[in-house]
Amino acid sequence: MIKTPYLLFLGDAPDQLAAKVAQGIRDWRPDNAVGQLRLPGCGADVRLPDMTLEEARAAGAETLVIGVANRGGEISQKWKAVLLEAMDLGFDLASGLHNLLRDEADLVEKARETGRALHDVRIPSVKYPIANGEPRSGKRCLAVGTDCSVGKMYTSLAVDMEMKKRGLKSSFRATGQTGILITGEGVPLDAVVADFMAGAVEWLTPPADEDHWDHIEGQGSLFHISYSGVTMALIHGGAPDALILSHEPTRKHMRGLPGYDVPTLEALRDLVLPIARIANPAVKVVGISVNTAGLGEEEALSYLAEVEARMGLPAVDPFRQGAARLADALEAL
Amino acid sequence: MIKTPYLLFLGDAPDQLAAKVAQGIRDWRPDNAVGQLRLPGCGADVRLPDMTLEEARAAGAETLVIGVANRGGEISQKWKAVLLEAMDLGFDLASGLHNLLRDEADLVEKARETGRALHDVRIPSVKYPIANGEPRSGKRCLAVGTDCSVGKMYTSLAVDMEMKKRGLKSSFRATGQTGILITGEGVPLDAVVADFMAGAVEWLTPPADEDHWDHIEGQGSLFHISYSGVTMALIHGGAPDALILSHEPTRKHMRGLPGYDVPTLEALRDLVLPIARIANPAVKVVGISVNTAGLGEEEALSYLAEVEARMGLPAVDPFRQGAARLADALEAL
Repeated sequence: MIKTPYLLFLGDAPDQLAAKVAQGIRDWRPDNAVGQLRLPGCGADVRLPDMTLEEARAAGAETLVIGVANRGGEISQKWKAVLLEAMDLGFDLASGLHNLLRDEADLVEKARETGRALHDVRIPSVKYPIANGEPRSGKRCLAVGTDCSVGKMYTSLAVDMEMKKRGLKSSFRATGQTGILITGEGVPLDAVVADFMAGAVEWLTPPADEDHWDHIEGQGSLFHISYSGVTMALIHGGAPDALILSHEPTRKHMRGLPGYDVPTLEALRDLVLPIARIANPAVKVVGISVNTAGLGEEEALSYLAEVEARMGLPAVDPFRQGAARLADALEAL
Repeated sequence: MIKTPYLLFLGDAPDQLAAKVAQGIRDWRPDNAVGQLRLPGCGADVRLPDMTLEEARAAGAETLVIGVANRGGEISQKWKAVLLEAMDLGFDLASGLHNLLRDEADLVEKARETGRALHDVRIPSVKYPIANGEPRSGKRCLAVGTDCSVGKMYTSLAVDMEMKKRGLKSSFRATGQTGILITGEGVPLDAVVADFMAGAVEWLTPPADEDHWDHIEGQGSLFHISYSGVTMALIHGGAPDALILSHEPTRKHMRGLPGYDVPTLEALRDLVLPIARIANPAVKVVGISVNTAGLGEEEALSYLAEVEARMGLPAVDPFRQGAARLADALEAL
């Protein structure tokens, strides 16, 4: 578990897109961040107060989060002075970069000296159990996609936020690096050893109050041959009560797989339900989330109406329209 | 890749069952073993010549394989003298035990001194790629089970042996520790990191002659919630042309999961086919292998006849009847 609140380190991010981890924290857990720290030439701004390390410590910040992705996932030498000073001032460090904090000798030495923690959120820090498949109390919702990167995390965060607004018991359960940095905890599922994947998801979604909803961050797709095993473990470890189907209608082929067509929402529904029933016979598909970023407003609304009529389920773009109708569907379950 | 031939170390195995790895090597790759080495009190015998380390070296043995499982998977102190002497005499060591050769300081020191290799076959030794899903030449067959441990490995080894006997091009592709020790190579799939599972299976089953068959060792079951993600990666990474359904008719519930019923062969067929078609639209179920060890001869034969009529596919117990009819079905494809 990463200590909050954070100071978000944007470094010398060339543009806003490079700061998407920081933006995610800002959008979904604004209380987790007291400010941003930018180096000269930084082209990103997540609209938080600019702070020095000292100012952020005075404002209560506990962890400096590297909220930026750079070419090759490296820990830039330009950043090192800030990271070292941060530990001297009492910050832990957290990063989702490919290159690990723990592989940088100077950072490791400083962390040892100062007693600070280095959190590499791509690497599991827990010895997960083998899944035991025992039913547990509480409700679980999982977003499953026709493809990878179609908005599953966004959907789950939006539904979680909507349920919290309504005063309902709700948690977002992160299974990837961005989600883990946003919430400060979770399982980096794609880095877990095969035999323990489903057990890691059970561990992440423990028994809870009967009226509590876990919104489990999806990964991959049953139709994406590179990562379908991870999706399978999420479905069987999560044993969801509710599924939300996620789709991106303008994609020409499966992400990174030019020879593979994106399936229809019907094909996804027909494949996922028998799989999900193995772990939870009562599972229902409750709604559809569509990432319509590639469509104009009118086109998006008519596409959503068509999907809704065709599938007989609420179909929304949570970014354009909010997640209220998806939360309604979960409440009605 | 583990150097063959082997000397099989049975240690102080209390009974025959404890030597099942050695027995597997003896049954399926007799040319891979020159003899067995037993300590006083050993209750197992795989019917190979008893040899000292020196005799086995003289007979050409390159690797001492720990062909025995003991309580807790430990590397017994009683064994250490033999293992150390073996390296002095020029043997590599190979083990599938939970406790690793590489974690024993005295073995590591001796291996360094003598330049010998320590093979812990539970641990991946290759940096596997992410699966790319590109079609490749050659044919692939995968056994999928209604549950774990229903005879998938045995089935694939038996079909491979039958095809080799007929002079056909055929390889058994090991994905678990016993299979890897039997053949000297393979992928310990349950220990591979999630993102690379399907890529490891692609790596294991590369492009081959169009009339060559890979028989991929199955793992887990789509219906076993603890390991279904591993099975999924095998199906999508292996992209099999042919599937053999494997079943054990006397099992009361899924292995280790008292709350889960074993599915029917029809349910397995109906779930696996749409999943397998994602990676290989031409995939066919070609036959059924049933482990009838729990049935008497007459009962077994009548059960197999009933399954064959019901499913419209050859149904055999490869242990009782050999795998000829399954090989016929593959040849006919």
